[in-house]
Amino acid sequence: MDFPSKLVEKAVNEISSLPGIGKKTALRLALHILKEPEIRAEGLSSAIVDLRKNIKYCTNCHSISDHDTCGICDSTRRDESIVCVVEGTKDVLVVENTNQYFGKYHVLGGIISPIDGIGPSELNIQSLIRRVETGEVKEIILALSPTMEGDTTAFYLTKKLKTFDVKVSSIARGIPIGGELEYADEVTLGRSILTRTEYSAG
Amino acid sequence: MDFPSKLVEKAVNEISSLPGIGKKTALRLALHILKEPEIRAEGLSSAIVDLRKNIKYCTNCHSISDHDTCGICDSTRRDESIVCVVEGTKDVLVVENTNQYFGKYHVLGGIISPIDGIGPSELNIQSLIRRVETGEVKEIILALSPTMEGDTTAFYLTKKLKTFDVKVSSIARGIPIGGELEYADEVTLGRSILTRTEYSAG
Repeated sequence: MDFPSKLVEKAVNEISSLPGIGKKTALRLALHILKEPEIRAEGLSSAIVDLRKNIKYCTNCHSISDHDTCGICDSTRRDESIVCVVEGTKDVLVVENTNQYFGKYHVLGGIISPIDGIGPSELNIQSLIRRVETGEVKEIILALSPTMEGDTTAFYLTKKLKTFDVKVSSIARGIPIGGELEYADEVTLGRSILTRTEYSAG
Repeated sequence: MDFPSKLVEKAVNEISSLPGIGKKTALRLALHILKEPEIRAEGLSSAIVDLRKNIKYCTNCHSISDHDTCGICDSTRRDESIVCVVEGTKDVLVVENTNQYFGKYHVLGGIISPIDGIGPSELNIQSLIRRVETGEVKEIILALSPTMEGDTTAFYLTKKLKTFDVKVSSIARGIPIGGELEYADEVTLGRSILTRTEYSAG
């Protein structure tokens, strides 16, 4: 693509380096920014730099926070005996959106992936062990992606946590609610048969 | 959506004010920016502000340019007797991408749209008239969107240009190349029959 200006080209290159945004979308966004008042471009620009420069992470669960500890860790209304272990802050938001979980969280900051050079020492695992060592945690729920890396991480954590008096569970894998059986893949369907849940007689 | 931090919330609000980007995508982008080195966020941020602050518009055709006049206006290899009139700079890029047009351009900077308060005086129409008055322009090709506003603008321009010795044409409307007849809408198909083109005996 030929650009009419070096400034447009630079902006398009920067914007299209974001995930899921191609050159065409980036150009559309750049031309939109040009049409808007200058203060809008400045607002967008400073929000991006502020975000990156001034963000804090909770010293307890490593989730994104405005203070030293996050709102969920500070909350006394949430169950301290259950900790949900997730890969990133995004997963905290996703689980929160379900309105079905009232325990605490622990953000690993990634998953074990030897191919990307990420081993257990790169993740927030030591701090999780320390939280378990206090004796307050009764259950760890692993909410990791059902991938090779997620399973490896789950296996590693289960082994590490075996020595403590803590229950380790994983979120259920199975057919999504509303999903039809004929469109489910065999691996998921097979696993959902193995991990079937019993109807409780009402 | 609840955000874990005011900084994230602000960034998401700013990013999602861009067209076609919702809160979910904005959050994904914000979390991506957090994972990248600080210099990347600064690069993106400064590219956006630079673009908005330092952009120039060609004094002749009003397209985006790095200099006072743009590369197309400066080029001596392009036909000065044909001017393609478009709504915005984006349309210049789109027409350029076809590699089928070797004349000059004129960017209106919008189209007549009374509902948005855009009348002829808000557009670069006077400067188009001045270009025609020099007598160098022999043909004006109107490449405007086939909407009510586009047609209104085309009608207005045609009336304005009638007094000059210049041919005014419009890009052809019809069935897209590769488009199947049965999926064409009736208006387009009806118009493509009215404006049918004759096969030249080869």
